Amino acid sequence: MDVTSVVNGVDVDRLHATVEHVSADPSLARFQFRASNQWIDGGHNRTTIKGFYGAGAEDVSRSEPFVLDTDEPPVLLGRNLGPNAGEYLLHALAACLTGTIVYHAAARGIALSGLDSTVEGDIDLQGFLGLDESVRPGFQQIRVSFKARGDFDDDQLAELAELTSFSSIRDTVSNPVPVAIEVTRA
Amino acid sequence: MDVTSVVNGVDVDRLHATVEHVSADPSLARFQFRASNQWIDGGHNRTTIKGFYGAGAEDVSRSEPFVLDTDEPPVLLGRNLGPNAGEYLLHALAACLTGTIVYHAAARGIALSGLDSTVEGDIDLQGFLGLDESVRPGFQQIRVSFKARGDFDDDQLAELAELTSFSSIRDTVSNPVPVAIEVTRA
Repeated sequence: MDVTSVVNGVDVDRLHATVEHVSADPSLARFQFRASNQWIDGGHNRTTIKGFYGAGAEDVSRSEPFVLDTDEPPVLLGRNLGPNAGEYLLHALAACLTGTIVYHAAARGIALSGLDSTVEGDIDLQGFLGLDESVRPGFQQIRVSFKARGDFDDDQLAELAELTSFSSIRDTVSNPVPVAIEVTRA
Repeated sequence: MDVTSVVNGVDVDRLHATVEHVSADPSLARFQFRASNQWIDGGHNRTTIKGFYGAGAEDVSRSEPFVLDTDEPPVLLGRNLGPNAGEYLLHALAACLTGTIVYHAAARGIALSGLDSTVEGDIDLQGFLGLDESVRPGFQQIRVSFKARGDFDDDQLAELAELTSFSSIRDTVSNPVPVAIEVTRA
């Protein structure tokens, strides 16, 4: 008899309970995530992340904020005090795809023993620099390669790839998201 | 006489030299950024970032990799061992918009003394959970609010907002980027 409900480190009983709660009250699925950024100097700036709203309440689980530094490498006039924003975006995508595969595989009873990935993003800085209007400022193409280990057959291996369609950041990057920006005087 | 070429912490002489080099040889603007991720347990995974290709060569300026941990908060079955992927994406957007304003303002001679921002992203987890096909998995709307300080007039304040159109991550989030994903057996 199976005495644990934990698959891939995910508490599947709690996951199923979450799904039931959300099914009964879809408003519980509404989340608002946040970040605050402060420019320091040149390409160096710092983000703090702490609170968010979700599951019907303001979250209070974090006593200290997460602090993330961004900078550029010397070739882009920075001092390597942190990854640059493009690298953070690729990281967010890889992390989300990984979490998505792990959670959804757990819900389907597919046990993983390892999941590694590499992500590459191509960008042409003529867009950022405003040198060629036909070149977009953003990534032109992103490729993600996963290596999975575990007790699964080839059909389940194919299923793991399909599960990435549930990824929030895959959708955010693949499809348009409205971004509203305002700049006012402090 | 102006004896320094540094505006907003950006070496404007080097920035202009970079633009001249890229104008003469557009292939120098082609960059490939990268990240590698390893799943640890449950919602916890870890990214390392080090090398990239750009300006016609493989970069060797970083002796140690940047290491970034991702996790979920308890309400999403994690242990808060890091920000989640959605928060990292909002951070990447804020950091890129900030750097974009700072660099382009420097090139135009607009001196800033401060630039703070907050970013909020709305998401409905019915999409991630696969409970409602009409709900997208990704962010539905993102709002960014900047507070700028410095010696600039109202026309230049409006110009700062327009400069965000050069942001690589704004474009990446606002417009579709092709994402190719493969999952193979390790």
